Amino acid sequence: MKILDLRSDTVTHPTAAMRTAMAEAIVGDDVYGDDPTVIALETAAAERLGKEAALFVPTGTFGNQLAILSYCQPGDEVIVGDDSHIVWHEVGGAALISGVQLRTIDSDLGTMNAEKIRKKIRHGVDIHEPKTALICVENAHSNGRVIALETMQQIWQVAQAEGVPVHLDGARVFNAASTLQVDVKTITQYCDSVMCCLSKGLAAPVGSILAGSHALIAKARKKRKLLGGGMRQVGVLAAPGLLALNEMTTRLADDHRHAQLLAAQLAKIDGIVIDLDSVQINMVWFNFSREIDVDKLMQSLANANIKANPPEHGAMRLVTHWQIEETDLARVSQAIEAGIAR
Amino acid sequence: MKILDLRSDTVTHPTAAMRTAMAEAIVGDDVYGDDPTVIALETAAAERLGKEAALFVPTGTFGNQLAILSYCQPGDEVIVGDDSHIVWHEVGGAALISGVQLRTIDSDLGTMNAEKIRKKIRHGVDIHEPKTALICVENAHSNGRVIALETMQQIWQVAQAEGVPVHLDGARVFNAASTLQVDVKTITQYCDSVMCCLSKGLAAPVGSILAGSHALIAKARKKRKLLGGGMRQVGVLAAPGLLALNEMTTRLADDHRHAQLLAAQLAKIDGIVIDLDSVQINMVWFNFSREIDVDKLMQSLANANIKANPPEHGAMRLVTHWQIEETDLARVSQAIEAGIAR
Amino acid sequence: MKILDLRSDTVTHPTAAMRTAMAEAIVGDDVYGDDPTVIALETAAAERLGKEAALFVPTGTFGNQLAILSYCQPGDEVIVGDDSHIVWHEVGGAALISGVQLRTIDSDLGTMNAEKIRKKIRHGVDIHEPKTALICVENAHSNGRVIALETMQQIWQVAQAEGVPVHLDGARVFNAASTLQVDVKTITQYCDSVMCCLSKGLAAPVGSILAGSHALIAKARKKRKLLGGGMRQVGVLAAPGLLALNEMTTRLADDHRHAQLLAAQLAKIDGIVIDLDSVQINMVWFNFSREIDVDKLMQSLANANIKANPPEHGAMRLVTHWQIEETDLARVSQAIEAGIAR
Amino acid sequence: MKILDLRSDTVTHPTAAMRTAMAEAIVGDDVYGDDPTVIALETAAAERLGKEAALFVPTGTFGNQLAILSYCQPGDEVIVGDDSHIVWHEVGGAALISGVQLRTIDSDLGTMNAEKIRKKIRHGVDIHEPKTALICVENAHSNGRVIALETMQQIWQVAQAEGVPVHLDGARVFNAASTLQVDVKTITQYCDSVMCCLSKGLAAPVGSILAGSHALIAKARKKRKLLGGGMRQVGVLAAPGLLALNEMTTRLADDHRHAQLLAAQLAKIDGIVIDLDSVQINMVWFNFSREIDVDKLMQSLANANIKANPPEHGAMRLVTHWQIEETDLARVSQAIEAGIAR
Repeated sequence: MKILDLRSDTVTHPTAAMRTAMAEAIVGDDVYGDDPTVIALETAAAERLGKEAALFVPTGTFGNQLAILSYCQPGDEVIVGDDSHIVWHEVGGAALISGVQLRTIDSDLGTMNAEKIRKKIRHGVDIHEPKTALICVENAHSNGRVIALETMQQIWQVAQAEGVPVHLDGARVFNAASTLQVDVKTITQYCDSVMCCLSKGLAAPVGSILAGSHALIAKARKKRKLLGGGMRQVGVLAAPGLLALNEMTTRLADDHRHAQLLAAQLAKIDGIVIDLDSVQINMVWFNFSREIDVDKLMQSLANANIKANPPEHGAMRLVTHWQIEETDLARVSQAIEAGIAR
Repeated sequence: MKILDLRSDTVTHPTAAMRTAMAEAIVGDDVYGDDPTVIALETAAAERLGKEAALFVPTGTFGNQLAILSYCQPGDEVIVGDDSHIVWHEVGGAALISGVQLRTIDSDLGTMNAEKIRKKIRHGVDIHEPKTALICVENAHSNGRVIALETMQQIWQVAQAEGVPVHLDGARVFNAASTLQVDVKTITQYCDSVMCCLSKGLAAPVGSILAGSHALIAKARKKRKLLGGGMRQVGVLAAPGLLALNEMTTRLADDHRHAQLLAAQLAKIDGIVIDLDSVQINMVWFNFSREIDVDKLMQSLANANIKANPPEHGAMRLVTHWQIEETDLARVSQAIEAGIAR
Repeated sequence: MKILDLRSDTVTHPTAAMRTAMAEAIVGDDVYGDDPTVIALETAAAERLGKEAALFVPTGTFGNQLAILSYCQPGDEVIVGDDSHIVWHEVGGAALISGVQLRTIDSDLGTMNAEKIRKKIRHGVDIHEPKTALICVENAHSNGRVIALETMQQIWQVAQAEGVPVHLDGARVFNAASTLQVDVKTITQYCDSVMCCLSKGLAAPVGSILAGSHALIAKARKKRKLLGGGMRQVGVLAAPGLLALNEMTTRLADDHRHAQLLAAQLAKIDGIVIDLDSVQINMVWFNFSREIDVDKLMQSLANANIKANPPEHGAMRLVTHWQIEETDLARVSQAIEAGIAR
Repeated sequence: MKILDLRSDTVTHPTAAMRTAMAEAIVGDDVYGDDPTVIALETAAAERLGKEAALFVPTGTFGNQLAILSYCQPGDEVIVGDDSHIVWHEVGGAALISGVQLRTIDSDLGTMNAEKIRKKIRHGVDIHEPKTALICVENAHSNGRVIALETMQQIWQVAQAEGVPVHLDGARVFNAASTLQVDVKTITQYCDSVMCCLSKGLAAPVGSILAGSHALIAKARKKRKLLGGGMRQVGVLAAPGLLALNEMTTRLADDHRHAQLLAAQLAKIDGIVIDLDSVQINMVWFNFSREIDVDKLMQSLANANIKANPPEHGAMRLVTHWQIEETDLARVSQAIEAGIAR
């Protein structure tokens, strides 16, 4: 019985085609600018994301932090949602690496109010004031919500009016595009730069993309070296990255549909409370309407060869991806039902 | 006609006694620990603020930033009110100097909710998470509000329970104590360290105090040198500082009474909207109920030899201090009345 | 005619076995600690380098900078050779990332005097002084010299006596071990931590190792995440890394022999000055005894399908590696001879 | 018997005129740009030092660090003598505050070789390289040596040719000018900015000056606020500062003459080795030709009401200043003679 791993989409294995691509990749020394596969990936990614240039980076966190470092001076201010990945899950890196003051603002799973952002923007004219050098937006939010195009646009308009650049943490921007049923450029038109992961739902083993203007990417390329991200025969990672970009983006709708199917199955289980509208990408969040025995639940899942993270603060998350097929879903919901049965 | 300067209490001149004290100060090289007047001030300040030790620093901003640098490692998180002086008026220093991630939370002129703070605290156990290394509170808030003892206590209890230290930006903590009609130690019992200014309402020409545990102050003493705050014959500043601490703290109630009197006079003027309850220390904030001609208002004040900052976003602030006497108040309210007359 | 690329050993392509290993690697999410191939590599590398633990990092620069960040506090001092890779080729990262003061000392292609190091060590007792938190050594030096064991030992003894840790930039430490005809542990016994590259002469496409104590590596693991080096299905890189460690280290002697053969051939050419004793690993450095036409030289090499970096400040470098065979060497020396002929 | 304190010139007390000036200073809030005495001092200092503008800062270390922060970006490189104050006595501040990589070069009590500097300069073109953003020179060196004008000029010419600015740590630049018998501008023509102390030999109780171009000083003014150096009624310090600049600079020759006289007296004492040529400003350094009893020496000095630092690594330093008169010198040499007598 195959293992089903629903802890996250970060657990995805490379596809068979990706493994072949790695093995056959034409490579070169990317620090010398010699790796044709990396160049092909960066060119394709820039085009796909609607930006002038792109850069391969080892991780999504690296891409976000590199963007901040490339836009900002120490002492500058960065406006960012209080529940964003940059605040929650990047280990305080922005302050350590870039010396920037995070200005965290209210965010409802990634949705921020453009007017609130406008009020926080400062231009550093007063001797007491730092300058707002960047606004960071996240879409899809790492908790699984998709930010509406209208919200993206409003924030963008404020940013343009005030002359502040916008960076999009688009770790799962292709998931957002799939849900919104738009080309990804319809989202990325509302940002100056975007980081998107080739791993996660797109299944590349390693790697993310930072895309933006020629000037930004030139700056980022040097700072990538400084931060220790100037790798060598990166073609072996760029080759599966190209497949991620070209072939895996189109199948994300399946993951989303599977998430909705799973949610629907869970919704029928006594003891589970789930908001079906909250299932917007490949993540299913739910709560329990009564006290449950977590050990018993986890044991039930383990018995069914299912990996999942235990509930935290009463909420449990399951994530679908290419290695979870429609026919696997019943096994999951049944194991949960058994695990929480009285 | 003497000039009345109500722009801020930072404009206060040293008193005659302070000038004499400066001229007669016994001094020594404070980097060698040789200046008896500094030692006397630091000893008195520590005792007065209820802490083990104290350190003279050039400014309030220096004291706050030195506290952050002494408590935190780069990448650590500092919880601080979104409308605090540290966020608004310290030029992004915390991130540049200490590399800390500010975690700004809702704050109503300094009043923060202890439960909200508790929810933000992180212990850095998860590999993705920074550690909350400090909570910063401000009392009185730089906009003139006094934070209730109960609020201070609640935040302190959360901090103690979670093992996170509390630093009090007490630039005007003696104003707060005066308003609350308590000894300043009743406030500072709810913090591990406190910065208080000897300038501002206390009228010393230069200087602030950072007080805390022996261990903190020892660390801060070395980092003060690193930040360029290890001055030499500081006795010339410590001498007026001692007067500020010993003699000026007792007369702050006069400034507060003058602020209330001025507010009462302004409240009677047609076109002025003022919340008398908001006058808690030496600051009077008011708005206008109709469009006014700012140039005319400023000219009217200038004609009466009064300095004031023009209204910002429709709000105007006047600040009382030892150089504003009760008999001066009418001149101020009359000049404003004339300046906004139709 | 196959291309011969002698610009650096960073240009090495993965071997056929490595490509297969990548394609077949068992992987998992390494941030969850789930990737068995990474665990196997880290275990093998720690054992091989004689340290308690090891960590996979994306590049050599990343590994060096991560070591500095893990050992030091901002304001600490790091003693390092003036001609080291950390000073020359890491873009000033140590100061930006870790806030450390580099204390650069005289270094003759990596050889430093232990007594000079001793004199620079400071313990931060005086209020004016930073603390020496780390000594960095590089072996083999990136210009191709091997540091004598005796030198390593002397520096280690000073460091031990003074209580300062030693980090070894061992990007090419297996080359050094091969030249010294010792097990690599004979070198790494003289350091607390070592970074070694799996790419370069060992031909893995991407990746380096940081090895040290359990405590250091635990700290480094979290800081690796902060710096954006926490990759996911790293098994695809660890698999060729294991081959690099197990199979490629034993063949470095061939590269060194090829370098010597090439040097001997070049030494016979009129117009070339070469110190045969300087050829210690896989690098051949030489000068010209008369003015040469660089364009003609580069053209001659290009005509022979040879890639090389042009001479810099009159010195030219050629680097051998697994893709340069003994039978290729004559083509290189002949192209150079033709290129500088009068 | 008055106490003679020869530990340093940092121990100087303000003169009677300075004390009066402090007491009578016209002051204002310098953050508002309101303090006429500060403006007068900054204007006078800029004119005197031959620069467009000047800024009052609390200490010499503050002024040096502020210059570095104003010139550099994190990751930039600063070339500085290995025995400079910035390296030795500023607690590693440049890396912590500005994130710059110090590139320490050989320095013989402040004298550096311009060609060696030229070779270290880098323009950051290569992706591996930081950019040299600043060269720091120190004159007089804090060990008492004066750097020759020719040396200053050579370094300046290299810097100009390479487009790198020069900052002069001129804590005692007026001492250097006095010894060189030139106007201070003859020295400061060879730098873009200069920090000079008003304390030390000039006897102001607190404060230093950073002078440079309008652009630099405007930048520095804001960064001074960030670093916590934006003080308020600074006129009380600027007033003695003006006396330091105007009246005390002309009498430094006396201190130098006293140092030479004292050196000549010491040279006659059995057991003392002194290089009379090394006495270039107000510092007398000497060694002992035989083992001495340090406790006995210090006791002998204490008995004569003389403060001095004990010998360090066999070398002892005495510093003259305005509070040491010619007639005091014999007391000092006699106490030392008695203290080292067999």
